[in-house]
Amino acid sequence: MNKTLVAAALLGACAGVAQAQSNVQIYGTIDAGVIKRTDQSLNIGKRAANTLGFKGSEELGNGLKAIFQLEMRYEPDTGTQELGSSTVNGVTTSVQRPLFQGQSRVGLQGDFGMIRIGRGLSPFQESVAYFDPWHGLPTPAGFWTDLSVAGFTTDPLGSPGTSGNRMSNAVFYNSPSYNGFQFNSAVGTKEASSGNAIIGRGTAALPQYPANAQPSTNPFSLSGTYNNGPMAAMLAYERNAVESKVWSLGASVLVMPELKLMGTYTSQDREHTFVSNSDVKAWVLGANYTMGPGKLLVGYGRKTPDGQPHTKQLSLGYEYSLSKRTYLYVDASRKEGAIGNATSTTTINHYDVGVNHSF
Amino acid sequence: MNKTLVAAALLGACAGVAQAQSNVQIYGTIDAGVIKRTDQSLNIGKRAANTLGFKGSEELGNGLKAIFQLEMRYEPDTGTQELGSSTVNGVTTSVQRPLFQGQSRVGLQGDFGMIRIGRGLSPFQESVAYFDPWHGLPTPAGFWTDLSVAGFTTDPLGSPGTSGNRMSNAVFYNSPSYNGFQFNSAVGTKEASSGNAIIGRGTAALPQYPANAQPSTNPFSLSGTYNNGPMAAMLAYERNAVESKVWSLGASVLVMPELKLMGTYTSQDREHTFVSNSDVKAWVLGANYTMGPGKLLVGYGRKTPDGQPHTKQLSLGYEYSLSKRTYLYVDASRKEGAIGNATSTTTINHYDVGVNHSF
Amino acid sequence: MNKTLVAAALLGACAGVAQAQSNVQIYGTIDAGVIKRTDQSLNIGKRAANTLGFKGSEELGNGLKAIFQLEMRYEPDTGTQELGSSTVNGVTTSVQRPLFQGQSRVGLQGDFGMIRIGRGLSPFQESVAYFDPWHGLPTPAGFWTDLSVAGFTTDPLGSPGTSGNRMSNAVFYNSPSYNGFQFNSAVGTKEASSGNAIIGRGTAALPQYPANAQPSTNPFSLSGTYNNGPMAAMLAYERNAVESKVWSLGASVLVMPELKLMGTYTSQDREHTFVSNSDVKAWVLGANYTMGPGKLLVGYGRKTPDGQPHTKQLSLGYEYSLSKRTYLYVDASRKEGAIGNATSTTTINHYDVGVNHSF
Repeated sequence: MNKTLVAAALLGACAGVAQAQSNVQIYGTIDAGVIKRTDQSLNIGKRAANTLGFKGSEELGNGLKAIFQLEMRYEPDTGTQELGSSTVNGVTTSVQRPLFQGQSRVGLQGDFGMIRIGRGLSPFQESVAYFDPWHGLPTPAGFWTDLSVAGFTTDPLGSPGTSGNRMSNAVFYNSPSYNGFQFNSAVGTKEASSGNAIIGRGTAALPQYPANAQPSTNPFSLSGTYNNGPMAAMLAYERNAVESKVWSLGASVLVMPELKLMGTYTSQDREHTFVSNSDVKAWVLGANYTMGPGKLLVGYGRKTPDGQPHTKQLSLGYEYSLSKRTYLYVDASRKEGAIGNATSTTTINHYDVGVNHSF
Repeated sequence: MNKTLVAAALLGACAGVAQAQSNVQIYGTIDAGVIKRTDQSLNIGKRAANTLGFKGSEELGNGLKAIFQLEMRYEPDTGTQELGSSTVNGVTTSVQRPLFQGQSRVGLQGDFGMIRIGRGLSPFQESVAYFDPWHGLPTPAGFWTDLSVAGFTTDPLGSPGTSGNRMSNAVFYNSPSYNGFQFNSAVGTKEASSGNAIIGRGTAALPQYPANAQPSTNPFSLSGTYNNGPMAAMLAYERNAVESKVWSLGASVLVMPELKLMGTYTSQDREHTFVSNSDVKAWVLGANYTMGPGKLLVGYGRKTPDGQPHTKQLSLGYEYSLSKRTYLYVDASRKEGAIGNATSTTTINHYDVGVNHSF
Repeated sequence: MNKTLVAAALLGACAGVAQAQSNVQIYGTIDAGVIKRTDQSLNIGKRAANTLGFKGSEELGNGLKAIFQLEMRYEPDTGTQELGSSTVNGVTTSVQRPLFQGQSRVGLQGDFGMIRIGRGLSPFQESVAYFDPWHGLPTPAGFWTDLSVAGFTTDPLGSPGTSGNRMSNAVFYNSPSYNGFQFNSAVGTKEASSGNAIIGRGTAALPQYPANAQPSTNPFSLSGTYNNGPMAAMLAYERNAVESKVWSLGASVLVMPELKLMGTYTSQDREHTFVSNSDVKAWVLGANYTMGPGKLLVGYGRKTPDGQPHTKQLSLGYEYSLSKRTYLYVDASRKEGAIGNATSTTTINHYDVGVNHSF
């Protein structure tokens, strides 16, 4: 093709178009199974997050690399983008999350570590995932999205339906690893994100954070991690946009090659938005036992919010690998506790069986 | 990169990320043309479904394979996700369909056949497509989305705008082929899908299925197909979430290598939601005649709902292949019948000319 | 796999699925940085459009090619599809643009030029981009989306949130290049697109274009471009769906290999929807100066709407290339003028620093 002016204009506006294909990797996970919960009819759903991602890196010389990652999330049972929920005036509706809910980040990596801009998991949430006996899966059979983080929400002012563990409008920095030690951090802006109102210390008529409020502080998240031989450990601290604070401690040890024991202790302080009973403490203990292609998962945890009934969860799971990329799973879990702000206690049993395929 | 703890956590949560690129295939269709309908101004639109898909398979040994397929649908004239329509209180609006409207399924394939979980075409709808003279295209010039299926809707309680021929929250099983015979089936759960209300045998104030109702039965779909040499045939049965039933018979024969004749007969029973006139019967006859790179399409069909005027459709089409992946097309079609629940008859002429490119 | 009937049906409906992977190129841009505007808190945002695209071409013989391009747009700071804004009754909300906001087109290319159907930039908007000192970036530091086009909107009746410079439902033709001359054109249909009402010469109760109005004329856009050696020039004319007209003249010259000077003059006539003061005139002068891996951008422009204060903009920018695909940037810009229909003047300073990576 002749390089005409319009083609040249496009070149200027979007340099990637006209050149040879760069090395974009497509990757993802599709996970679907059958789920039975105490209070629901049998349904088809997921155990892991479902992703379709695009990522790449470019060598810039002197050990410097440009990196990017764009990760869609979806629901395989209905084909939609990943769904979250939004509650306004007590009515909860299902809301589509962002197209690239998983992450959308660009940055540079080098001897100094890795700096990225965009949206992704907070360092606290990412570090805790390693010590969850369900290896960070969002399934109710696991502990990651509730007990492991003591019910903490990373993005309380995010747009309706947003997930609880990601930071938008943030800069992320990860240090290199020194003898197994690594430092991870992120700080967000005070941009408003069309979020729902949060009553907090206000009233329904005059909420502490009205709809589309800006953060009252720059949210940030820090974690230090250690991973060397059979031992791993983590210490993390995060403060979110409504000034709730959380700190967390985690450790794991391979007592033999087949057996990993792990635990977390997490403490949340919501004093800025709660008049009383602002603290939540939680701990989780778990084990993974590998038997050839099979892996047994066991976990038990408690979450204790001040002045409310505590939550107890016991879970058993089994994963059977058909290959490095594909496994079958089955879980049984019992969770007993107060739902939302209820003062009475409910027990929910959760069972699932399904397949997980990475590509 | 050092495998730091956070990287390891990500590994656990999403095994696909860190390994070598697996063999994801990108495929799709883009089809756009100029359309003139009797009652509309000239517009740009589609003849075929427009898709952008991602699929792959993994050998697990012993003939077993893990398979997945994620298929977006879109409108090339405006760049949006595929649009459907939603009617509430007599007002119809345009609504975006799910991102992966085409399908989102994961499963296993082996000597036993193929089992998949997720969302996709029902076996009935998929089998009928083969006997449509417009080879299953959704264009009004073809017969697939209305006359071939006797107006049957596979997902009547689906979320607003959902397509009429797909099952969400379903398990799909396809047998292997035995001497050309194959058995295909799917069964869905009774999950609610945020669907609009269906008055049915109720009233506007007290509809038989209120908004976001659960199915009153597990929807399922069955088809047996035969394909051997010049002959193909199909028998299918389906019952949807509001207990409408449909059965269908189809056959085709290559009377010479250039000429395929085909026909379907389909009968729908909507007794569960209709007080009277619950039956709809329809038949379609068609032919495809290949002349070098060209193919002539001819079809005629009738749909006869009890107590309502019948619908007649005559269509003529021509496809000219520029390659195996690209063809030009032109269609002329006349459809005469009652629109919706009208008791009077309307005639709509439809003309189109355009291009279809697969990639 | 045995080619069973259902597989064969899929083959007919979607020929691309079963064949070997064709050569789909994935490409895109991710651009994110830190932005400070006079009237906003510090935020994370973009300077360039963020894209994830899929494109391909197929040789058909005799120099003929089938081509397609599908281009997503997104916001890396929050992971959503690209956002636009929609104003109804004076209230402005953020609205997601189409999934393939960048473009969705299919067509043929050969000795005759290139003909495509779908949605994309209008030839006027595309040609002007080449003469913008910020090479067609949508950042407020550049001139392309406002001053370079004299505030002209290509799609005023488009669906809420739609971008101002794209045509939906259009046929695009680009001639081959003759000694550097090229002719580009597009014409749209009169389809309604669910747009918001435009009061125009009507009243709020009886707007000239009610919500979801059809165009009162076929929109079209023409440009002639010249690009040869150090000289480039452009003449363009466009009439949109509400009969506003615009013409534009642009020229650039490489006075030395490192220095490109450029300018545009653009005149808009909105007589069809304005009772008075219907004309807007604007000019922009700019320079790009290359210094090794760095490039300095300078621009100054004015927009003069009849009977309203004029807008003045002065911008300075610097881009530092880390590679052909990755650069860092910093901008400082001051814009003084009437916002919207205001009669008083506001000054907005805009600063940004960030990274742009193409893949």
